[in-house]
Amino acid sequence: MSFQAPRGMRDFYPEDMIWRTWLFDTWTATARRHGFEQYDAPVVEHLDLLTRKAGEEIVDQIYAFEDKSGRQLALRPEVTPSLVRLVAARRTQIVLPAKWFTIAQCFRYERMSKGRKREHFQWNLDIIGAADITTDLEVMATAVDALRALGLSAEDVSLRIGSRKLVAAMLTALGVPDDQQLGVLMVLDKRGKVSDEVLAEMLRDAGIAADLAARIMGIFEVSSLDDAARQVPADSPAVAELRQLFTLAEKAGVASFLAFDIAVVRGLAYYTGIVFEAFDARRQFRAILGGGRYDRLFESLGEPPLPAVGFGFGDVVIREVLEAKGLSPQGGPGVDVCVGVFEAANWPEAMEVASDLRREGFCVDLALGAEGPKSLFKYADRRAARRVVFLAPEELKSGSAVLRDMSTRSQETVALGDVVTAVRRSLAGGIGSA
Amino acid sequence: MSFQAPRGMRDFYPEDMIWRTWLFDTWTATARRHGFEQYDAPVVEHLDLLTRKAGEEIVDQIYAFEDKSGRQLALRPEVTPSLVRLVAARRTQIVLPAKWFTIAQCFRYERMSKGRKREHFQWNLDIIGAADITTDLEVMATAVDALRALGLSAEDVSLRIGSRKLVAAMLTALGVPDDQQLGVLMVLDKRGKVSDEVLAEMLRDAGIAADLAARIMGIFEVSSLDDAARQVPADSPAVAELRQLFTLAEKAGVASFLAFDIAVVRGLAYYTGIVFEAFDARRQFRAILGGGRYDRLFESLGEPPLPAVGFGFGDVVIREVLEAKGLSPQGGPGVDVCVGVFEAANWPEAMEVASDLRREGFCVDLALGAEGPKSLFKYADRRAARRVVFLAPEELKSGSAVLRDMSTRSQETVALGDVVTAVRRSLAGGIGSA
Repeated sequence: MSFQAPRGMRDFYPEDMIWRTWLFDTWTATARRHGFEQYDAPVVEHLDLLTRKAGEEIVDQIYAFEDKSGRQLALRPEVTPSLVRLVAARRTQIVLPAKWFTIAQCFRYERMSKGRKREHFQWNLDIIGAADITTDLEVMATAVDALRALGLSAEDVSLRIGSRKLVAAMLTALGVPDDQQLGVLMVLDKRGKVSDEVLAEMLRDAGIAADLAARIMGIFEVSSLDDAARQVPADSPAVAELRQLFTLAEKAGVASFLAFDIAVVRGLAYYTGIVFEAFDARRQFRAILGGGRYDRLFESLGEPPLPAVGFGFGDVVIREVLEAKGLSPQGGPGVDVCVGVFEAANWPEAMEVASDLRREGFCVDLALGAEGPKSLFKYADRRAARRVVFLAPEELKSGSAVLRDMSTRSQETVALGDVVTAVRRSLAGGIGSA
Repeated sequence: MSFQAPRGMRDFYPEDMIWRTWLFDTWTATARRHGFEQYDAPVVEHLDLLTRKAGEEIVDQIYAFEDKSGRQLALRPEVTPSLVRLVAARRTQIVLPAKWFTIAQCFRYERMSKGRKREHFQWNLDIIGAADITTDLEVMATAVDALRALGLSAEDVSLRIGSRKLVAAMLTALGVPDDQQLGVLMVLDKRGKVSDEVLAEMLRDAGIAADLAARIMGIFEVSSLDDAARQVPADSPAVAELRQLFTLAEKAGVASFLAFDIAVVRGLAYYTGIVFEAFDARRQFRAILGGGRYDRLFESLGEPPLPAVGFGFGDVVIREVLEAKGLSPQGGPGVDVCVGVFEAANWPEAMEVASDLRREGFCVDLALGAEGPKSLFKYADRRAARRVVFLAPEELKSGSAVLRDMSTRSQETVALGDVVTAVRRSLAGGIGSA
C-alpha cells in the first residue's frame, strides 16, 4: 500500500514537530503577552456558515461533504466565520471588546505551489467589539511582536498597510459606482498574481469600461499616503485614520515594521477598513500574514453590528522565510537521563530508578531493547540524552548504578538510593557551570 | 442563521480552552518526562488506510468524502493507522524503538451519549519496535503518571488489564477454533454495553453453538490471574507475561493502579497481546483510556513485522471524571497588567507604556473602549488583571501614571519612565510575600 499522506497534507515527524511546537509556543506566548485569550472551534462546520460572505474563490476551494444524516458539512477554509458564530451565540455574556486567538488547521483544495498546501495551521487573532483605530494598531503590534519573537527584524519583513476605505474613496473619485467597488477590489487583489493583461480582462468582466479600467490601474502608481491624500477629498476619514495609525505605531515601538502600500486590498469580501499583509523584504515568498478590519460581517449574517479587526498568520510561509534566513528553534525538548541495563534481567531495578527520577520531574527515557553498553550508548546518543544511568550486574551486586555524562564520557558509581541526588547535582553542574 | 456547531462537535470558549490547555499540557509534560517524542499526522487520510484492519464498527462510523479529483478521503477515527504509515514510510531512518506521542482530533459518526461526541481529542502514545513486556509496562506507567498528574489516585481510577492471548488460550481450551476467535473477542468486548441476551445472539451470529456460547460466557467468572491460570496449560506464556507485568509494576511504583480484569478485550481487531482500559472506581463513566499490544498490524498492511504497544486517552471522559471529583485547573493564564486611560486622547501614551511592559515579558491587556475609571476598573476586574496602570490627564501633566493593585485597591503615582520597575516590584511583592 502507499504510505503517502493525502496530496497537499503534511505529516509531522518528531523533527518537524519541534519546529511546529516552537512556532505555536511563540504565537501563544505573544498573544498572551498582549492580553488575548485562546478559543477553538470545530474544524468541521456547516457548509452554509462558510459560504456566506467569504468571497467566491475561497468557496470554490472548500472541502465539502454530506454526513450520514444528509447534513452539508465542510472542513473550514478559514476561522473567521466560526469566530463570528461563537461570539454571536454568546453575545450578551462575553466581555467586550473580546481579544481572542486560536491556532486552527484550515483546509483549501487548491493548486499546490510554493507556500501553499491543502492544509495549514493558522494563528488567528481578533478584537471584536471595538471600532477605534487603537484596536487596529493593537492587533498589528501583536503581529509585529510575534515576528520579532521569531527572530525577524524590520530589515527582514515589513507589514504593508492598505485601506479598503481609501481605495473606495479613490474609486468614487474616479467615478466607479458603489455597487461595483467590491468587485473591483477583488480584482485588484489579484495584481502580482496574474498579469496586468489578465487583470484588465477581469476588470472588464466586472463591468468596467476600458478607459476607466486604465485609470483604476493608475491607483497603483500611488507610492505614499501623502500622494494618496491628494486624490481624495481633504477631509477623507480614510486618510485621517491611516495617519493616526502611523502615529500610534511610533508610540507602540512598531513603526519601523510598518509601510503604507496602496496595493494591499486583501482577497476576502468582508473587509471594510484598514487591511495589511506582511512580506519578506525581498518579496521572495507569499504573504506571511494578512488581516484587517471587518466591521459589517456580523450585520451581513443577520446579527446586530459589531466592529472587528484581526489577522491570520499561517505556518507554511513563515517556515520558508525563517529557513531562508537560517533561523530555527535551538534544539528541542531533550532527554535528561537515559536509563538502561547491561542484561535484560535487570529491567525491574532500572524501572525503579526511572520511576524515582521521573517523580522528581526529570525527562527520562528507557533504552528498551538496547541492552549492553554498546547498544545502550548508541541509543542514548541518538536520543541526545545528557546523562545515562546504567545498571550492570557487577555494580548491582554492591547496590550501585553507574552515572555517565554523555558529553564528557566521564562516569561515576553511585549507590542506588543516591541516583536522584547524583543526577540532580550532575545536571545542575552541567548547566550552571557552563 | 443558526449559531450552533455541527451536531456532536464542540466549541471551545476561552473558559473551556483553559481546561483543554491544562489537560494537553499535562499529557505533553508526562510524555516528555517518559522520553516520548511528539509527532502529528493529517486529520484527513486516505479512506483505504483507515478501513484496513480496524474492525467493522469503526469503519461504519467514518466520515468519508471524495475530493475534487475523486480521491476517497476521510476524517481519521483513530490515529494508529497514520502512525503505522509514518513509521513504515521512514522505517530505516527512525531510531527504534520509537517512543512517540501525539494529541490528535479524531472523528466518529455515532449516536451521541454521555462521554461520546462525534469528535474528540485523543492523546496517543506508542512504542514501536520493541516486544518485551517492559515496553507494555513503560506505556502503562506513562498513562498512570498522567492520571496522577491530573490529581487522580489509585482510589479514584484503576487500570484494568486483560490479555487477548490469555482469552484466546481459554477459548482454545474450550474448543473454539482459531479462525473464530477474533469474532468471539469482538463480541465479548460488547459485554456491559449490550444485554447478555444480545451478547448470546451475537455469539450465535459468529457461528458459535449455544452450549459453547454458555461456556464462553463462563470466562467472565474468572476473577483473578490465578483463577485464569488454572484454565490454561501450566506453561501458558500469556500467564507468565501477566505475572511479569505485575512484578514490574511494583518496581515502577504503579502497581496500586493496576488490576487484572479478564473482561477487558478491547474493540479494535488489531490487538494481539495485553490490553488495558482505565475506569473510574465506581464505573460511572466510560473508559478513560484504552490500549494494548498490536504486534501484527505492520505485517497485516504488507510490511515487515514490527511489534508495537500503545494507548489512546480521550479528552471527553476524563473531563467528566475530573469534574465529578471537583478537580479542575487552578485559574488560567492571567493578565498581569491592564493599561487604560481616562480620556481617549491619551491612548498614544498608554500604548507606549503597554509596549514597554510587554517588552519585559509581562502579559498586558489594553482596556480598549473602556475609557474612564468606572469602565476601566470594571473591565480589568472581568479580565482578572492583577494590576492596572492608568493614564489620567492630571497625572500626565506631571509625567506620571497611576499603578493600582486590583486586590488591595491601593494606588501609587509613578513617573512614566519608572512604570516597568514599579510593576515588577509590585508583582514580585504580590507573589513573593504572599
